[in-house]
Amino acid sequence: MQQRFRKTCGALALLGLFSTGVLAQEAPKPEQIIKWRQSVYQAIGWECGRIRISLDKGFDREEVKKAADAIAALANSGLGALYAPGTDKGKGWHDTTLKAEFFSNSAKATEIARDFVKEANDFAKIAATRDAETVKTQFGKLTQTCKSCHDEFRKRD
Amino acid sequence: MQQRFRKTCGALALLGLFSTGVLAQEAPKPEQIIKWRQSVYQAIGWECGRIRISLDKGFDREEVKKAADAIAALANSGLGALYAPGTDKGKGWHDTTLKAEFFSNSAKATEIARDFVKEANDFAKIAATRDAETVKTQFGKLTQTCKSCHDEFRKRD
Repeated sequence: MQQRFRKTCGALALLGLFSTGVLAQEAPKPEQIIKWRQSVYQAIGWECGRIRISLDKGFDREEVKKAADAIAALANSGLGALYAPGTDKGKGWHDTTLKAEFFSNSAKATEIARDFVKEANDFAKIAATRDAETVKTQFGKLTQTCKSCHDEFRKRD
Repeated sequence: MQQRFRKTCGALALLGLFSTGVLAQEAPKPEQIIKWRQSVYQAIGWECGRIRISLDKGFDREEVKKAADAIAALANSGLGALYAPGTDKGKGWHDTTLKAEFFSNSAKATEIARDFVKEANDFAKIAATRDAETVKTQFGKLTQTCKSCHDEFRKRD
């Protein structure tokens, strides 16, 4: 019971971090939430791919800035709502790869989520004004937060 | 030949509108592009759903603004790259519903794309400062551009 309470509090803290009220107002099905979650990260993956190409093949600030702004806006838009309790099981576009540990170790999940938002915001600022090397370094910091989350909370095939 | 040239020019004009250089640098497979496209619009659909809930059940500016910013950033991020010629056929998460007419009537596609970007930008501005009724009206203008595109270029089941 106490463990369940801690898990619920952890999940709520995470939702709070991402600051959204959607779940309190409506209750979409886990499958729909997982589909949205997979879609948002696929979209972020697309934007990251464009950034990587630009940084590898000649820095195009306009291209990188647009992608960076989209990542930052998504990161700030309330992604915590896409991690409703119970969504470590089920199928969106495909079976979710979210581990149950995301909810049992919500302190770590919250820390990574906070880092992701911070590095995404920093990246958007740096992409707008700084030189290619600095942008590249900051892109590394951003993608490191993606990797941290995958290492901790993504199921392996 | 001339028709083909016109189609190619139309597609390039559309890519130009969305201002991205990705396709010139790399050539992802149509299936991957379709998957990204479906993901981006699913993400936009999620953000629109949150806005609708907030506008229907009591205007939460912070909630609406975050979702509006994400939609605007995605709209401005270069979505034309997700409409590479040939991507009216193929499977991303599911078979694409994009009609071939998207490429043969690229003047219309470009017009709708331009409207979408404009209304998304206006919506983000209005969501930040104006009253609920004005935000609702502008949200109607934004979603009308989605409907226009669906009416013109989305296959029916």
